[in-house]
Amino acid sequence: MARLVECVPNFSEGRRPEVIEAILAEIRSIPGVLLLDAKSDASHNRTVVTFVGEPEAAKQAAFAACARAAQLINMQEHHGEHPRIGATDVIPFIPVTEVTMAECVELARSLGREIAEKLGIPVYLYEEASTRPHLKTLPQIRKGEYEGLKEAVHNPERWPDFGPHELHPTAGATVVGAREFLIAFNVNLGTDNVDVAKKIAKAIRESSGGYKNVKALGVMIEERGQAQVTINMCNYRTAPLYRVFETIKSEAARYGVNVVGSEIVGLTPLEALVDVAAFYLRLEDFKREQILEERLWEQGE
Amino acid sequence: MARLVECVPNFSEGRRPEVIEAILAEIRSIPGVLLLDAKSDASHNRTVVTFVGEPEAAKQAAFAACARAAQLINMQEHHGEHPRIGATDVIPFIPVTEVTMAECVELARSLGREIAEKLGIPVYLYEEASTRPHLKTLPQIRKGEYEGLKEAVHNPERWPDFGPHELHPTAGATVVGAREFLIAFNVNLGTDNVDVAKKIAKAIRESSGGYKNVKALGVMIEERGQAQVTINMCNYRTAPLYRVFETIKSEAARYGVNVVGSEIVGLTPLEALVDVAAFYLRLEDFKREQILEERLWEQGE
Repeated sequence: MARLVECVPNFSEGRRPEVIEAILAEIRSIPGVLLLDAKSDASHNRTVVTFVGEPEAAKQAAFAACARAAQLINMQEHHGEHPRIGATDVIPFIPVTEVTMAECVELARSLGREIAEKLGIPVYLYEEASTRPHLKTLPQIRKGEYEGLKEAVHNPERWPDFGPHELHPTAGATVVGAREFLIAFNVNLGTDNVDVAKKIAKAIRESSGGYKNVKALGVMIEERGQAQVTINMCNYRTAPLYRVFETIKSEAARYGVNVVGSEIVGLTPLEALVDVAAFYLRLEDFKREQILEERLWEQGE
Repeated sequence: MARLVECVPNFSEGRRPEVIEAILAEIRSIPGVLLLDAKSDASHNRTVVTFVGEPEAAKQAAFAACARAAQLINMQEHHGEHPRIGATDVIPFIPVTEVTMAECVELARSLGREIAEKLGIPVYLYEEASTRPHLKTLPQIRKGEYEGLKEAVHNPERWPDFGPHELHPTAGATVVGAREFLIAFNVNLGTDNVDVAKKIAKAIRESSGGYKNVKALGVMIEERGQAQVTINMCNYRTAPLYRVFETIKSEAARYGVNVVGSEIVGLTPLEALVDVAAFYLRLEDFKREQILEERLWEQGE
């Protein structure tokens, strides 16, 4: 089976197509890596890139893209609505297939070291790769943004994990880390009462006592006249789709409301769907190798 | 996405490893084809081979294996418990991904013509590729087996679809056709009363008025002390796993029995599992391209 990580680097450029294209070309040039998506936002002045590949190849691609961004993006001239501290603002690695979170953490640290040593850019480790509780999340690390961090980086509490205790003059600083795959999952309710969706969202999300690594909001989908629970499933292994879905069904029933449908927005790892099938069919000992396509895919390696 | 068919040829040799290996070598030699499995049975004196590949490559592999079997297997000397009429006894094509049943029927007919023309072996078309209602199933076509068909083939009602109205002296005749993927699915019940399993099997199988293309039996799994409904799902598109499973659950409940687990024996197409996940999550507009691994797999083509 292919060993596979996803990497979703964010670059502080959302307006100049030639700069974005040059960065993407670096990623495409690495064998064993597949560029899946690149979304640029002009008001954020930021591009979110998604690619997958074997761990070492993914690391190479991330380094090459980061090096190119450091040449082409000048943070002294950067303006945009989204918080950021560097040309390559953040690089998360996400385990997908046959790769553990521990390996993604190691990959992140190894890439961070390389960026610091070869490019002279200070690197912060975040989320699963984080080394310090007070610098674990992006908001903690990005506090003050590029402009504020110029000074703050001299404070030992804000020192980077690798590289100089000084921002790179044009590339700023970069955050590298590891996290679980995020599945965007929406559940549509048979009601136009958004309060029901809000109550259900509150019941399932971590911040109000629900499932760990689940973020949720209740919203109104005007064109359908339906309330919706819109969810970020930040760890489908510990809080699987079926468990969250069943909780939503039972909470909705309490208000006499049906779940009329759901949607997965964007990508999902195959494993998350196989887990759903295995749960509902009560499958015993099902193995990924029993999927016909998986066999062919293996062969491709 | 890869266009993919499965092919499960059956050869009338289950004892001489060198003969089986020579046939498998032909299949392995065709690019774009992946040999998944080969199961030989000495008492049946028969080998069941499973491979997948792009349609044209699968046809080439089936032809090459059939030609080799015609050289190495002499039906005049063949003895075994399983009914058979030829060295290559039967070749079914099964649509898996991005291939229609109509294309598999065309593939079967085209292969049948080639076997008849190039190898001088009479070919019968069966199941979806069949041209005559009285020669649609394997038992109908195999009636009298190799020995009986020697004479019967002269009768216009038993004429082959392609090739001479005479068996090949050593290779006999071959059946080529198209059918749906068969999923072997077992559902375990929380009871040691096999009668419950038998009643449920009767409720779901086509032969007693249940789902079309579903075959089922109630059996006792002694080592677990559990009754089991053992099912051949012969068309997971028209009778999906979730529908059959839900019917079993509701029939079992009528006897106060729980479904304690299930198993898929051997392979399943990814689609059958995605259908299960989509059913239970009530997914709207889910596309295979949303599966991360599917993207990489596409790339491999």
